[in-house]
Amino acid sequence: MPTDAHAGDAPTDAQEACFEAGIKFGSLYHQFAGTPVSPASTRSLERGMAEAIENQPYCESVTVTIHDDRVHEAIDHENGYTELTGSLMDVSMRIVRDDVVVRTRMEMADGYPLMRLVDVEA
Amino acid sequence: MPTDAHAGDAPTDAQEACFEAGIKFGSLYHQFAGTPVSPASTRSLERGMAEAIENQPYCESVTVTIHDDRVHEAIDHENGYTELTGSLMDVSMRIVRDDVVVRTRMEMADGYPLMRLVDVEA
Amino acid sequence: MPTDAHAGDAPTDAQEACFEAGIKFGSLYHQFAGTPVSPASTRSLERGMAEAIENQPYCESVTVTIHDDRVHEAIDHENGYTELTGSLMDVSMRIVRDDVVVRTRMEMADGYPLMRLVDVEA
Amino acid sequence: MPTDAHAGDAPTDAQEACFEAGIKFGSLYHQFAGTPVSPASTRSLERGMAEAIENQPYCESVTVTIHDDRVHEAIDHENGYTELTGSLMDVSMRIVRDDVVVRTRMEMADGYPLMRLVDVEA
Repeated sequence: MPTDAHAGDAPTDAQEACFEAGIKFGSLYHQFAGTPVSPASTRSLERGMAEAIENQPYCESVTVTIHDDRVHEAIDHENGYTELTGSLMDVSMRIVRDDVVVRTRMEMADGYPLMRLVDVEA
Repeated sequence: MPTDAHAGDAPTDAQEACFEAGIKFGSLYHQFAGTPVSPASTRSLERGMAEAIENQPYCESVTVTIHDDRVHEAIDHENGYTELTGSLMDVSMRIVRDDVVVRTRMEMADGYPLMRLVDVEA
Repeated sequence: MPTDAHAGDAPTDAQEACFEAGIKFGSLYHQFAGTPVSPASTRSLERGMAEAIENQPYCESVTVTIHDDRVHEAIDHENGYTELTGSLMDVSMRIVRDDVVVRTRMEMADGYPLMRLVDVEA
Repeated sequence: MPTDAHAGDAPTDAQEACFEAGIKFGSLYHQFAGTPVSPASTRSLERGMAEAIENQPYCESVTVTIHDDRVHEAIDHENGYTELTGSLMDVSMRIVRDDVVVRTRMEMADGYPLMRLVDVEA
């Protein structure tokens, strides 16, 4: 019988749901990082981002909070805008796949934006 | 006297304004192409895109129209969404720099999205 | 004792590794989708993409294969290039986190690019 | 005779060439800003970016220089990588359209990356 020494196990439903949760975070971050943002445009960008990613499979809800005070501080006042980066926002998502519910967050930790699994409900 | 055989002329104000207009179009297109979109999220994406690019220097106004019927047709009905591309939208912008007004549009021409200068008012 | 009715379980090491694998896929796809590509630039884009994503945490290896024949077919011959999308490439990645090895692939399935977990070795 | 009070002049060949030059800069910047980068991947990213944008119409040559020392300084040493932004690179391009040659550069000026027309040769 041929064997594949490198093969691991088939993924569980919970692992699949966590994989999907990661896809949504990577998508949101790399689609929108670099977008010009100012305090005048934070609300429309939050909503545009959240509704865009909610289109993806298994993505039940996305909440994006861009902090106006952080945007204000990051702005070069001659230009009047800055570029969106992880340090300016918090994101939370709820992913549901095959009865598994995964909750995730991105927030600042020790000065860096950290994407993390909050919990998994199988 | 040192000479530079490759040097052209210094750009005029109108040429600078046209350069700025091009920057806004390239920015808008490559920042947002690939964004997940469905008929449920076209309005928030249009607004998020327009307000983001209006932050850029010399960009007086941006109008983005994502055509719901084209989005609907482009959707794989199992997934329920598609990715934003030039064929799904029209964009018009008004750029003002040093008293030069440049109007630009992106729209379909012969089956392809074409970015073009409409006119230049010096 | 206060309780949180919505809380699921803390994620396992294997679930964390699958979440990380998903982040890499979403990142790669949404960072590079829309990039202009022609048969003359497939090799440099494959390498630029793979080395960029290999910088991310827990990402041991990334292989990107852009199919020249599909790029060639997708090109409008007047323009000479097209935009990168999932249907033009296969991607495989190996993610290692806390002794868990996750293998993932993106490839065409029923006419659509599908990102999937291949297996998980805890 | 119908008149359009808002109409300016039709663009000149030189203005069209400057518009095209701007498109290339906006495209390059917003396609690749946010890409993970480390000193180990600067060369492949430079080449991937340059060859991608050279596919665009009228774009004769693109040179991207990502400064290894700036990347090194920008890195959080626990992560080992940073995200590409304008402050880490210089870019120069040569655009040719209808016998007009436009040279452009992006480089740091007063602490900010500035995209500019160098000269225009009609």
